[in-house]
Amino acid sequence: MKLNIALLAGDGIGPEVIDQAVKVSDAIAKKFNHEITWKPALTGAAAIDAVGEPYPDETHDICVASDAVLFGAIGHPRFDNNPSAKVRPEQGLLKMRKKLGLFANVRPTFTFPSLLDKSPLKRERIEGTDLVFLRELTGGIYFGEKGRRDEGETAFDNCVYTRVEVQRIAKKGFELAMTRSKKLCCVDKANVLETSRLWRETVQAMEKDYPEVEVSYEFVDAVAMRLVQWPNSYDVLITENLFGDILTDEASVISGSMGLMPSASVGTDNALFEPIHGSYPQATGLNIANPMATVLSAAMMFENFGLKEEGNAIRNAVNKALDAGFVTEDLANGDNAYGTSEVGDWLAKNI
Amino acid sequence: MKLNIALLAGDGIGPEVIDQAVKVSDAIAKKFNHEITWKPALTGAAAIDAVGEPYPDETHDICVASDAVLFGAIGHPRFDNNPSAKVRPEQGLLKMRKKLGLFANVRPTFTFPSLLDKSPLKRERIEGTDLVFLRELTGGIYFGEKGRRDEGETAFDNCVYTRVEVQRIAKKGFELAMTRSKKLCCVDKANVLETSRLWRETVQAMEKDYPEVEVSYEFVDAVAMRLVQWPNSYDVLITENLFGDILTDEASVISGSMGLMPSASVGTDNALFEPIHGSYPQATGLNIANPMATVLSAAMMFENFGLKEEGNAIRNAVNKALDAGFVTEDLANGDNAYGTSEVGDWLAKNI
Ligand SMILES: CC(C)[C@H](C(=O)O)[C@@H](O)C(=O)O
Ligand SMILES: CC(C)[C@H](C(=O)O)[C@@H](O)C(=O)O
Repeated sequence: MKLNIALLAGDGIGPEVIDQAVKVSDAIAKKFNHEITWKPALTGAAAIDAVGEPYPDETHDICVASDAVLFGAIGHPRFDNNPSAKVRPEQGLLKMRKKLGLFANVRPTFTFPSLLDKSPLKRERIEGTDLVFLRELTGGIYFGEKGRRDEGETAFDNCVYTRVEVQRIAKKGFELAMTRSKKLCCVDKANVLETSRLWRETVQAMEKDYPEVEVSYEFVDAVAMRLVQWPNSYDVLITENLFGDILTDEASVISGSMGLMPSASVGTDNALFEPIHGSYPQATGLNIANPMATVLSAAMMFENFGLKEEGNAIRNAVNKALDAGFVTEDLANGDNAYGTSEVGDWLAKNI
Repeated sequence: MKLNIALLAGDGIGPEVIDQAVKVSDAIAKKFNHEITWKPALTGAAAIDAVGEPYPDETHDICVASDAVLFGAIGHPRFDNNPSAKVRPEQGLLKMRKKLGLFANVRPTFTFPSLLDKSPLKRERIEGTDLVFLRELTGGIYFGEKGRRDEGETAFDNCVYTRVEVQRIAKKGFELAMTRSKKLCCVDKANVLETSRLWRETVQAMEKDYPEVEVSYEFVDAVAMRLVQWPNSYDVLITENLFGDILTDEASVISGSMGLMPSASVGTDNALFEPIHGSYPQATGLNIANPMATVLSAAMMFENFGLKEEGNAIRNAVNKALDAGFVTEDLANGDNAYGTSEVGDWLAKNI
């Protein structure tokens, strides 16, 4: 297969972890006879510094022309405590999601037997946890009208959803549930929000098309609790953008394998693959960041092209590294930590 | 002291747990020579059934005329999966908060040494956890304009905050931090939401009035993670209504003492005290619900009147019951569970 991949390294540790995913993907290409052309492009704070814009048109053109996007991380602390900064790296991310139509963020949370004890939760709570969030990614309060009134004294953010937006993500949820345990949980706040009531009624109306799927409806506050109490009671969950932002991050820590969690953001024509962790600015350039989440994101990318074997080869290499203790400091016991780049080399060699 | 307390038992297990708080408060009144007049009033599904309204005017009048409100729980499953129900119990709760001006919801999360092992989190993660959320309760997306457009195909919810609304809750946050470890965390989503940027800039501007308080600003998704990772790294947290709904529920499970967590909702003229747990409909009438959160809410009520000794007497009784294993089934080991009402009697006797 000939693959054109847009490579958006972004900020902080982004470039370091992306490098390892490239190494591993190139090893896959060699082994399975694919041809990958990497098209690097600017995004985030790096793009603001270079061209004054976090998601430049040129980057967008590269993404549109590509078969998939591999993404590192964005965000820089110098923008965080400056609420009035006019240009912000995150705007680039949001613009990218919207312009590429990436409406479904797929975030699995699963456990690695060898890492169970890294979890803040007790072993018996997380054993067997294997859930997937489908977070709506191009609607809701992220993209509604926002601004100030009364000379800046009043601020507002509008949350808007259309039935069609809910249907297309719910459809993905039902379909995913059919390939798994046929359990779907719709997370909303239908006791307070009108948008949530639209979500709930839309999903309810779709139930008849998937008679085998058992659907439950839970309030976001209840899910925030039960995720910590009994994460392994969930399978597929669908939710709106902001709830998804909060809950997927919460879910990512329960397995103890946060540095390993990949994600995909898919739309009708494009798909983007990225680790769920942030840009981890304190670690920038130190060669200590865990590249495995990005590497596993590349595995999701291959699978999205229908290349299951390639995806599995990556997963196996990661499992092997974990078993062998060839890991970065976040997962190492004692002094046996390897660098970001060494872990990448090891994985590439073990493909 | 002569105290007029409005008694809003509400739905589900509400009436059962409220009964125990009344027993215990009456024991306090007897011991410390106070005179409590209880004014029962309808709310929630119970009020809808009786008068077609979840927060009837009569109930409001009773609350306004009272010195404080003691509240059980509201919510009934027959409304939950019926998004189009015109009258909903939760509307009563929201109307009550708004009409009574209860803008600050105070939700402590702390650990009981004897219950540490009930937590889903590992002991070393929660030892020493003692944090308080101040959740804004009468603004934000809960109270903004909401509705439908395009013949019901589009739904919207507006999130609105004014600087004054942020200032009054932030002031409470700074003041509370001054009585504790002088650490305040402002939780927002300032990288996306305009309302959050207003929150952040308002709190930043107030920092100079409290030079001793160390303020940090964290994104809601990061806090959702760190609450599970290191809950004991937090002390006082302030946040907006919806984030507070999600995070306080999440926080409530980490200590393993969810059935014990009280809360207060305070305004300028009124204050309401309630357990953080819900109406637990499956347990209704079974005499199994844990009344301790409601009893500890009564302790907060006495303290709010400046009656510190009375509050402590209640806390001591609860601690004694926990040590003696005189607890409901959620906390009992094996078969040694006592009923809701027996626990209430025991606590009253031990005042
Ligand atoms: C950086 C930020 C805008 C973003 C979001 O809120 O969507 C991030 O938290 C994420 O989850 O990808
Ligand atoms: C019942 C519901 C409207 C309410 C809320 O969301 O505020 C509840 O979850 C709470 O936290 O008190």
